[in-house]
Amino acid sequence: MTQKISTESYKGVRDFYPEDLFIQKHIFSIWRSVVESFGYVEYNASVLEDANLYKAKSGEEIVNEQTYTFTDRGDREVTLRPEMTPTVARMVASKSKELVFPLRWYSIPNLFRYEKPQRGRLREHWQLNVDLFGVESTDADTEIISIAYKIMRGLGATDNDFQIKINSRKILNDIYAHFNISEEKSYTLSKIIDKKDKISEDVFRDSIRETIGDITDDFIRVITNNERLIATLGSENENTKELITLIEKLNALGITNIVFDTTLMRGFDYYTGIVFEVFDTNSDNRRSIFGGGRYNDLLDIFGADKVPAIGFGAGDVTAQDFLETHNLLPKYAPTAQVYICVLKDDLRDHAGKLADTLREKGVSVAIDLSGKKVGDQMKIAHKQSIPFVIVIGEDEVISGTYPVKNMDSGDEVKVKMEEIAHIILK
Amino acid sequence: MTQKISTESYKGVRDFYPEDLFIQKHIFSIWRSVVESFGYVEYNASVLEDANLYKAKSGEEIVNEQTYTFTDRGDREVTLRPEMTPTVARMVASKSKELVFPLRWYSIPNLFRYEKPQRGRLREHWQLNVDLFGVESTDADTEIISIAYKIMRGLGATDNDFQIKINSRKILNDIYAHFNISEEKSYTLSKIIDKKDKISEDVFRDSIRETIGDITDDFIRVITNNERLIATLGSENENTKELITLIEKLNALGITNIVFDTTLMRGFDYYTGIVFEVFDTNSDNRRSIFGGGRYNDLLDIFGADKVPAIGFGAGDVTAQDFLETHNLLPKYAPTAQVYICVLKDDLRDHAGKLADTLREKGVSVAIDLSGKKVGDQMKIAHKQSIPFVIVIGEDEVISGTYPVKNMDSGDEVKVKMEEIAHIILK
Repeated sequence: MTQKISTESYKGVRDFYPEDLFIQKHIFSIWRSVVESFGYVEYNASVLEDANLYKAKSGEEIVNEQTYTFTDRGDREVTLRPEMTPTVARMVASKSKELVFPLRWYSIPNLFRYEKPQRGRLREHWQLNVDLFGVESTDADTEIISIAYKIMRGLGATDNDFQIKINSRKILNDIYAHFNISEEKSYTLSKIIDKKDKISEDVFRDSIRETIGDITDDFIRVITNNERLIATLGSENENTKELITLIEKLNALGITNIVFDTTLMRGFDYYTGIVFEVFDTNSDNRRSIFGGGRYNDLLDIFGADKVPAIGFGAGDVTAQDFLETHNLLPKYAPTAQVYICVLKDDLRDHAGKLADTLREKGVSVAIDLSGKKVGDQMKIAHKQSIPFVIVIGEDEVISGTYPVKNMDSGDEVKVKMEEIAHIILK
Repeated sequence: MTQKISTESYKGVRDFYPEDLFIQKHIFSIWRSVVESFGYVEYNASVLEDANLYKAKSGEEIVNEQTYTFTDRGDREVTLRPEMTPTVARMVASKSKELVFPLRWYSIPNLFRYEKPQRGRLREHWQLNVDLFGVESTDADTEIISIAYKIMRGLGATDNDFQIKINSRKILNDIYAHFNISEEKSYTLSKIIDKKDKISEDVFRDSIRETIGDITDDFIRVITNNERLIATLGSENENTKELITLIEKLNALGITNIVFDTTLMRGFDYYTGIVFEVFDTNSDNRRSIFGGGRYNDLLDIFGADKVPAIGFGAGDVTAQDFLETHNLLPKYAPTAQVYICVLKDDLRDHAGKLADTLREKGVSVAIDLSGKKVGDQMKIAHKQSIPFVIVIGEDEVISGTYPVKNMDSGDEVKVKMEEIAHIILK
């Protein structure tokens, strides 16, 4: 007990002081406002999941090296969820007979990955998850990508600040088929393509050559040139046609900052069709902000009926990085709208009643309880960024008229109690 | 891969389908609205904490038998927070030089306890934590208990539905001193008194007799009779005077459903003064709903300056039980306010543009993407409890007049696009 306990948080996670949480709440509020405007309803689940949930489809690296998995006292293997898609798939599969499809669902869970903390990658982050279950047509893909676009606009981005890269896993499969590449080698190639932006061009080429040998140069030429790709698959290819339709539908809704990129993979093994990623175009922050895709087969792992699904996940850390890079962070405002100071301690009961009256009118009121001199009380209000102050002395109690001071402008008006709420709320 | 994965959640935690989360959000919204009206600002932290944080003050049972504690891959001992008070104390201690006191802080964290799931006690629950740092006077206790009271009223309770029990750890210490009971035996007695409502009167008496022998009957008479207690400590006792002042201040604010109960302990070792608990008076749910108390010494464990503090924690499970028992659960309403159905698939692009226009006016709009017949589309809207439906055919596209149907009343009005938002939002 003599040894002092550390005040530091656990490694790679964040403490959210009110000013920090204010930013996160700003991001959450934009997220909610956009997805709810499309009629999405919120769900949630525990961070604790049976470890088996991640062993089927999440991708090897995530399960083996990057999860927090432990054995509980009842000998169950438990994982702190590293992503939300398996959880939402589990929940939908569990009630697939009762739920009324199509489902528009969203959630803002916290997720855990055991990895070395770095810019944009912490051990815990929050992630907006938006999913549309039960629609196979490109109208669903259009809606999900529209929402992604509107979230960027909602955060304050212009069309020039970001780009939406789109691809289709099915197109890549057609290319593998065109080159007669085996399923096993295709899997290896997909993993190499997924790392393309993180490795040099030479390493990229060499890794592919190790897998498919002589056809490497041809293969790379096709996957890095859209015209050649479309020519190779032929103008009647269903999957390139689907992708073009999707881009046209998005254009019709005014969304034009779209790029078709055959090398866009997304890490997870469960994607089956369209995948997309939102990229920051700012040279200081050129990276993926978030993304998603179609996963029509994921419910199979639960033995449930097939339910087509498409969705995306957008993290709070990358959103905040984006706001910082583009100078879009909100200015902190506290909860309290007015701070009541008292000239004497025994006026605090009167202050309490005034506060209660104002609260009933929807004003957020903090009363000074410091017992300090009135000047110091006002300093507290100022340092806590509270916009209005009322000082109560005996005169105010007798007259029923109160001085309402605007801390920003310094203006003060003396008004009856009934008028205070109006001044503060306007 | 052939073995199917279970769709069940991990034992003792909950899946929140939209209808379930709706209730939790209703509770959170009342919590936020009350505490923010008092100027409290929100903070947060990770569920992961260094296990050492709980070893100093939380109480033996919680740390040794009831936490989720595991060793991470970097050999750190990590605990999923079982309560928020050590975390908030750590955060305040960490920045005690920079923060502007008094601090009014709240949070709604999820907490974990490894225990047998039962009514009102799950392995994971959410808990409103409200804390006021930096005020030693009873004005702080008054404010915190007022907030607890207003939360009950906010949930829909009348004064008859609940009671606030109040005690002071300092009064109990004075009684121990009066009976010359050693510190070690006092600690044992406090643990027995804490279990009073869970054990029989005989077991209670026998356990105390094992600790203090002959004076048992005298001791029990004093702690179970307020008049005798006050007489025993004398009318000049500072701590009973403080408690009486607190009750008078609460009465002055119109809060009268208060009971002084010397046997009210609260489990945690860190309380130093006033403790209180809100009790449900309904015979079907007679139990503690939530509570809190003063903990002036907790920051000592971090080697920080002393900061007086008082706060409470209120759980979502017990809040929901309270709403159920008292028939106060809210009626589910989805996010979408209007559902747009289409007579033909190729009208969906027109529907998309109409939806975008309505969204800009603040209406939440879901478009039917099911591809089903219009009657079945309307059934989806009905089953998802969406209050309005618009059906678009070629006539509507040509005329620019749309039928807005109120699904509850069955009424339908045909209006121009500009008027739709007005009808739905009013």
